[in-house]
Amino acid sequence: MAKKAIPDIIIGRLPIYLRALERMQQAGQKITSSKDLSARLGFSAAQIRKDLSQFGEFGKQGTGYHVEYLSKQLRAILNINKVWDVAIVGAGDVGSALAHYKGFVNRGFQATLIFDNDPAKIGKKVGNLIVQDTAEMVQTIREAGVKIAMIAVPADHAQEVADQLVEAGVKAILNYAPVQLSVPEDVHVEYIDPATRLQKMTYYLE
Amino acid sequence: MAKKAIPDIIIGRLPIYLRALERMQQAGQKITSSKDLSARLGFSAAQIRKDLSQFGEFGKQGTGYHVEYLSKQLRAILNINKVWDVAIVGAGDVGSALAHYKGFVNRGFQATLIFDNDPAKIGKKVGNLIVQDTAEMVQTIREAGVKIAMIAVPADHAQEVADQLVEAGVKAILNYAPVQLSVPEDVHVEYIDPATRLQKMTYYLE
Repeated sequence: MAKKAIPDIIIGRLPIYLRALERMQQAGQKITSSKDLSARLGFSAAQIRKDLSQFGEFGKQGTGYHVEYLSKQLRAILNINKVWDVAIVGAGDVGSALAHYKGFVNRGFQATLIFDNDPAKIGKKVGNLIVQDTAEMVQTIREAGVKIAMIAVPADHAQEVADQLVEAGVKAILNYAPVQLSVPEDVHVEYIDPATRLQKMTYYLE
Repeated sequence: MAKKAIPDIIIGRLPIYLRALERMQQAGQKITSSKDLSARLGFSAAQIRKDLSQFGEFGKQGTGYHVEYLSKQLRAILNINKVWDVAIVGAGDVGSALAHYKGFVNRGFQATLIFDNDPAKIGKKVGNLIVQDTAEMVQTIREAGVKIAMIAVPADHAQEVADQLVEAGVKAILNYAPVQLSVPEDVHVEYIDPATRLQKMTYYLE
């Protein structure tokens, strides 16, 4: 499917809308509105309407959005009406926490592979996974057809791991190492670094 | 110190610049430039110059920036030339991972308190911390003067915890629960939800 060029910042808000809709569904709410979503999310109602209108007509003036329908549409747009396998690289504290993380269930992802280069960790169980040797990572990921990986190795090794993941055919990397990565244009990278998020807030503290 | 109104998105980039500068320092690099930073970070050199110029004159045309000096200035601007105590709420997998997390060292933060409401966890050691009863959280945080907290409880309890943190005087919350929080205007919230970051990337995958 060819994508029209929709700003990345709008794409980034869709999962937030979906998360709110799924909480409404769990609570049994059938109908919502841009105003209702705005009150929950803090984005303006106008922005929510404008964002959603980029992808089609999901609601009617005056009647709002059907929660289940809009939720289903957003899942299709985000390509998560399937479960994606995800590889974890690094079986230290962060990688282990990701292997145990319950927050991926029903949200389109499952960790299926975990790698480390530490002989003391290889072969050990982490969550439901057995730690495999990073030396076999490229081949294993390629053969499994896994397209998404999370990097949880020390900063000094992250670029090397990213290069290997690209070689293995990975197209989306969630990087927990506190360092910027260089990847080809067709590979997407998102960063999670709690210290930078805290530092952003301390700017505002006395 | 009165802050001039600098867009939040610029403040959010300062920790990324600082992170790159600190890696340069570790590698013994003395001088950098907006072009050098641009190559490492993927932001344009013009944007980096413009962002930094909001806060003062840190470099000279043609000679670039002194890495150590700029790094020190950014730490001062971000208020992290001290170590902030941080409270963790929730001693499950995510909270425990945060208590063990080595990524806060030298970046301005240390976890000093952890709370849970589960009697099986209260009194147990997690990292260097003893899990305390959430029932005593408001008083304990207020007495300790802790201004920063990380929420790592299930989504259904996150708002209630946020309300208590606000009551305790917390001004900055890093929320790992996959739900938007409602807080007073003078309290800052940042969100970490890996599933939303992965969902943003799957949009682009076939």
